Amino acid sequence: MSTSFIDFRSDTVTKPTKEMRQAMFDAEVGDDVYGDDLTVIKLQDMAAQLFGKEAALFVPSGTMGNLICVMNHCGQFGSEMILGDLNHIHLFEQGGCATLGRVHSRVAPTQPDGTILLKDIEERIRMVTDDHFPQTKLVCLENTHNRMGGKVLTLEYIQSVGQLCKQYGLKLHMDGARLMNAAVALDVDPAQLIECCDSASICLSKGLAAPVGSIILGTKEFILQAKRLRKVLGGGMRQAGVLAAAGIISLTQMPKLLKLDHQNAKLLAEGLAKIPGCEINPENDVQTNIVYFDLNPSKVKIDLQTIAGIFKQEHGILMSASGKWKARLVIHYMITKENIEYFLEQFKNILEKNQI
Amino acid sequence: MSTSFIDFRSDTVTKPTKEMRQAMFDAEVGDDVYGDDLTVIKLQDMAAQLFGKEAALFVPSGTMGNLICVMNHCGQFGSEMILGDLNHIHLFEQGGCATLGRVHSRVAPTQPDGTILLKDIEERIRMVTDDHFPQTKLVCLENTHNRMGGKVLTLEYIQSVGQLCKQYGLKLHMDGARLMNAAVALDVDPAQLIECCDSASICLSKGLAAPVGSIILGTKEFILQAKRLRKVLGGGMRQAGVLAAAGIISLTQMPKLLKLDHQNAKLLAEGLAKIPGCEINPENDVQTNIVYFDLNPSKVKIDLQTIAGIFKQEHGILMSASGKWKARLVIHYMITKENIEYFLEQFKNILEKNQI
Amino acid sequence: MSTSFIDFRSDTVTKPTKEMRQAMFDAEVGDDVYGDDLTVIKLQDMAAQLFGKEAALFVPSGTMGNLICVMNHCGQFGSEMILGDLNHIHLFEQGGCATLGRVHSRVAPTQPDGTILLKDIEERIRMVTDDHFPQTKLVCLENTHNRMGGKVLTLEYIQSVGQLCKQYGLKLHMDGARLMNAAVALDVDPAQLIECCDSASICLSKGLAAPVGSIILGTKEFILQAKRLRKVLGGGMRQAGVLAAAGIISLTQMPKLLKLDHQNAKLLAEGLAKIPGCEINPENDVQTNIVYFDLNPSKVKIDLQTIAGIFKQEHGILMSASGKWKARLVIHYMITKENIEYFLEQFKNILEKNQI
Amino acid sequence: MSTSFIDFRSDTVTKPTKEMRQAMFDAEVGDDVYGDDLTVIKLQDMAAQLFGKEAALFVPSGTMGNLICVMNHCGQFGSEMILGDLNHIHLFEQGGCATLGRVHSRVAPTQPDGTILLKDIEERIRMVTDDHFPQTKLVCLENTHNRMGGKVLTLEYIQSVGQLCKQYGLKLHMDGARLMNAAVALDVDPAQLIECCDSASICLSKGLAAPVGSIILGTKEFILQAKRLRKVLGGGMRQAGVLAAAGIISLTQMPKLLKLDHQNAKLLAEGLAKIPGCEINPENDVQTNIVYFDLNPSKVKIDLQTIAGIFKQEHGILMSASGKWKARLVIHYMITKENIEYFLEQFKNILEKNQI
Repeated sequence: MSTSFIDFRSDTVTKPTKEMRQAMFDAEVGDDVYGDDLTVIKLQDMAAQLFGKEAALFVPSGTMGNLICVMNHCGQFGSEMILGDLNHIHLFEQGGCATLGRVHSRVAPTQPDGTILLKDIEERIRMVTDDHFPQTKLVCLENTHNRMGGKVLTLEYIQSVGQLCKQYGLKLHMDGARLMNAAVALDVDPAQLIECCDSASICLSKGLAAPVGSIILGTKEFILQAKRLRKVLGGGMRQAGVLAAAGIISLTQMPKLLKLDHQNAKLLAEGLAKIPGCEINPENDVQTNIVYFDLNPSKVKIDLQTIAGIFKQEHGILMSASGKWKARLVIHYMITKENIEYFLEQFKNILEKNQI
Repeated sequence: MSTSFIDFRSDTVTKPTKEMRQAMFDAEVGDDVYGDDLTVIKLQDMAAQLFGKEAALFVPSGTMGNLICVMNHCGQFGSEMILGDLNHIHLFEQGGCATLGRVHSRVAPTQPDGTILLKDIEERIRMVTDDHFPQTKLVCLENTHNRMGGKVLTLEYIQSVGQLCKQYGLKLHMDGARLMNAAVALDVDPAQLIECCDSASICLSKGLAAPVGSIILGTKEFILQAKRLRKVLGGGMRQAGVLAAAGIISLTQMPKLLKLDHQNAKLLAEGLAKIPGCEINPENDVQTNIVYFDLNPSKVKIDLQTIAGIFKQEHGILMSASGKWKARLVIHYMITKENIEYFLEQFKNILEKNQI
Repeated sequence: MSTSFIDFRSDTVTKPTKEMRQAMFDAEVGDDVYGDDLTVIKLQDMAAQLFGKEAALFVPSGTMGNLICVMNHCGQFGSEMILGDLNHIHLFEQGGCATLGRVHSRVAPTQPDGTILLKDIEERIRMVTDDHFPQTKLVCLENTHNRMGGKVLTLEYIQSVGQLCKQYGLKLHMDGARLMNAAVALDVDPAQLIECCDSASICLSKGLAAPVGSIILGTKEFILQAKRLRKVLGGGMRQAGVLAAAGIISLTQMPKLLKLDHQNAKLLAEGLAKIPGCEINPENDVQTNIVYFDLNPSKVKIDLQTIAGIFKQEHGILMSASGKWKARLVIHYMITKENIEYFLEQFKNILEKNQI
Repeated sequence: MSTSFIDFRSDTVTKPTKEMRQAMFDAEVGDDVYGDDLTVIKLQDMAAQLFGKEAALFVPSGTMGNLICVMNHCGQFGSEMILGDLNHIHLFEQGGCATLGRVHSRVAPTQPDGTILLKDIEERIRMVTDDHFPQTKLVCLENTHNRMGGKVLTLEYIQSVGQLCKQYGLKLHMDGARLMNAAVALDVDPAQLIECCDSASICLSKGLAAPVGSIILGTKEFILQAKRLRKVLGGGMRQAGVLAAAGIISLTQMPKLLKLDHQNAKLLAEGLAKIPGCEINPENDVQTNIVYFDLNPSKVKIDLQTIAGIFKQEHGILMSASGKWKARLVIHYMITKENIEYFLEQFKNILEKNQI
């Protein structure tokens, strides 16, 4: 897509900043399979420090990050994990945990706030050695929760799940693709948010704008095994420092911009709420940089897929419709306040012309 | 367990009848891996005929039967199936579909009548070639539904799911461990109940009393592949005719006894309904040979695990408590009307002494 | 196949003896999934005792027995086993160790005596934590060695492999489908032959004539896990005592008949050696009940596939040709000295008529 | 490792050229998961063109490239592939084909020239529907052959294997990590070398110096499926154009430098051949950029691991010893003729001091 589009489809579309480009150009690199890439080592050390874990590993994607963590915790044949039915791992990673990782998934209903209830977790735990059951080894959370509109899991909630896991001897993994958004929204140290987690996967792309890569976090022993899994999955890259150099900027420079993304998302939501036929509660529904909203088909006679088509053709705007009456708009550093005002204006225009 | 126990734990405890023992003694056998066992061939032909499918295969267990069918339909890497969250395949087969079969499971809420809603199936189907998604290949039903208390799926319901599957090019598998109970309860030809299914797995043990084995059903091509899967799983047995001989009697002699089991289950349920503190609705809850009931902890001060212990020690009765306040009693040909009256008498006695 | 055939195809074709039929008829049974089948328990205890291991488990087939043992030793993701390139596990079990068990196989050349060289094992062991390598966890031997013509691994050889495994912290599994034949040939206690093995799988069918089933052996902990694997593979059978009853006779009554099988095999080999065009060295090639021989196509103008066809049609003899010029004849309790003489007579006749 | 080392360990250590750095800096990028990255598209189109296939896909590593191709050809459960016992896929990719891809491997002996014999392939093909066998779906070759010292498979050999595969309906995959070295050594169009292959995997790093990435090649349909597999394995990268930009230079600028690498390797080999105690046949053993040689422990009293240690400490030279008496030296664009002369001088010195 040409750079002239205003791209609301996802924060995955963010392009590397000028500063990242320069850092990639200048990066000292080596063969990371031999452990010789100083920039990768620097990024991993920095990430371990920042997120308060013993060790970190750079991987090519969030999907690989999650898969490695799940396979690492559930490496023994016959394992099961408990996770929300609308978690990214369950819905949007092609079922890799089962098809590659041979882990059985037991889902609990995802609540509107992105949590799963403690009692729902607890009643799904299967520790007894009944041959009819796989053995529960892992619980997975997601923060912020993509499918639930970027909802933030609170520190208290995460800790309560952490305690439950400890009580039953289970591991806790955090799919923290957008954990930095959660930390900014809660105004807490990101390390606190995964303190009681055994592992986490954090994207450097998305809001943090690196072109490629995620970080996984855990104990030294966990990361040593994770490195083996990365290799067999084909994620062992050679002079990966060219990517890590951008990742370092993602961790140092970009988090401070996320607050603005969240403000812009709120602005967008408030604008939408004022447009007749558009249904959204800015207060409750928008906590970070993701804005889900509905059109009311009893009030407007144009659907969102049609609008998305027109916007792309005529207004230089890209957006993702989820079916006819629901859409997701995602804010990131490349979308300005002016872009949002422009979007709202166009959106208001098209809906006004199509009121029933 | 000594034969003197009255065993309500499950219909899996049924022992072969005298007639089965004799048939096993007399069975003409051969090496079934070479296709030489005439008794196995006879059983398979008879089953294919009875259930209206092109071909049948004898397997050592219902778990293997279901696993083979799922793996056969989802043999291509990257497949997903849709099934009820309380289905036996999902809950009680150790997660083999994921851990051995590498199939991703997408569950829909199981309704009290054992069905999953058509809209719940439909909205989970993923046919588009989005790389984030596995591809839906299969829907699984269970009839009668074990975990929902032996509930019967109606012909109309099954046909409606069958139509949905056809519309989307999906396969439909029936976990028919107790399909014969459903056929008897509905008073229909069992073949009708799986006419729109691409495969089914039927237990010869349970209510049908064979010591070992299940039958899977499908097209000739399907069964040819199923035989390959049976071999790799280790289910290829040599002179299996000794077991098949009993299975033939399961299909010919035992179904007519199931009606009595259902009557006895109803009798048991009606008896329980009259005991203060015991909660069950015989009309709605008991459709076949499985009786789930609750104790009301606000009315009685003894729990079902305690009662099960006392009954085993003192009254020669075996029963399964699911937690403290819920139990499952299963009726089969070895439990007589007198046994049920005896059980009810003892149960009434112990509860009367423990009213709050 | 009708009982009137003399069946040299394999010892898997053995039918249960009259005594086995009676024992199956009389067997006390229960639900083995609940641990209630006293006959299964008796067989397992007897087998553990006989083979000198802590515990035993009855499984439906040798293929399942081997698969369970391999998966049990290599349950951790990323495991590799070392075994002979002509082992049954590698060649004739449909690749289940990889396709179901996800274990990587590293083969060593099988020697004519059924062994693999110690140096070939040792140089394949990969213990270092190099991310390019899976981790070696297991070595598998086979005794007697089917594909090498029933060759017997000596006690000394097995012990030397056992020591190597101990030195490197590897597990040692014995595919002992025909271990009893080895014990009889060596005139040693079968327990000695697996004393330094961590697990073994022993067939009750084949020469021991049970209709169905194998035994796996190991520590109590190993067997507890093996039982879980048996369940997920679908090998958990209900009133399995009907089969175990025959298995008990396999272990108590049948081993003493194996010596005669070996004598008959030698007799057959010696007879073949005298027939012009037939190539076999009875002394070296025939150690137990399996007779592999070749026809010399420069001396005879009829091939073994043609002969097998004629023998089946005209002489009531079944045999397996491996290609045109090699055949395997297997002796078992249903083949008498007279049958062998009859075979040799027919074979001599047909070859004499077809000399070049 | 600091840039001051002369690094003979592998050609994987090559760092991106200045021109690559600049191209990465300037690269037009987009979200490649959405198909928006024009630089990735350009690289893929260029590679498809150059290697004469319908389509190409950029992946993070050669290990992932091979794994995707193998899983794609063997996606159906129960598949087997035939390959050399010393192929990189079999030895150095952690067994991923079995542990992730659940493909059974049947190896044939690797010949000194890197080939496997046609008769060895043919006798391993298992097409018959015998339930004891997996089904052969794929043959894999490797060109140049890493473990055999960079040996080149000839066009004639590859075509003969291609014909065999066609005859049996098998797919043929080329692990072409260093295919460009083969093309340069043979002075043929690289497209010719994989014309009869159904897929190939080509590294952009190694001799071609890109920091990260490989290309896989096949039909449009094959690449569409490969893209799905890349996603589930976690190889879907976002603004991958930053890497692809370097890859474009790998394909356009770097191949012409390989000839010099090969000359330098020959020079090195010839130098080594003149040093007493050093065993190598430059004529036969060195065809491309890889130099394997032995020390003769009866002539010198210092081993290669010790030498490697001293060279790293004292001479700024990195080399890989394979055990005590064998070493591999790999030439790439960062190693000059002067570096080789320096190495030979130091190596001669140390051996002269340690003659027996």
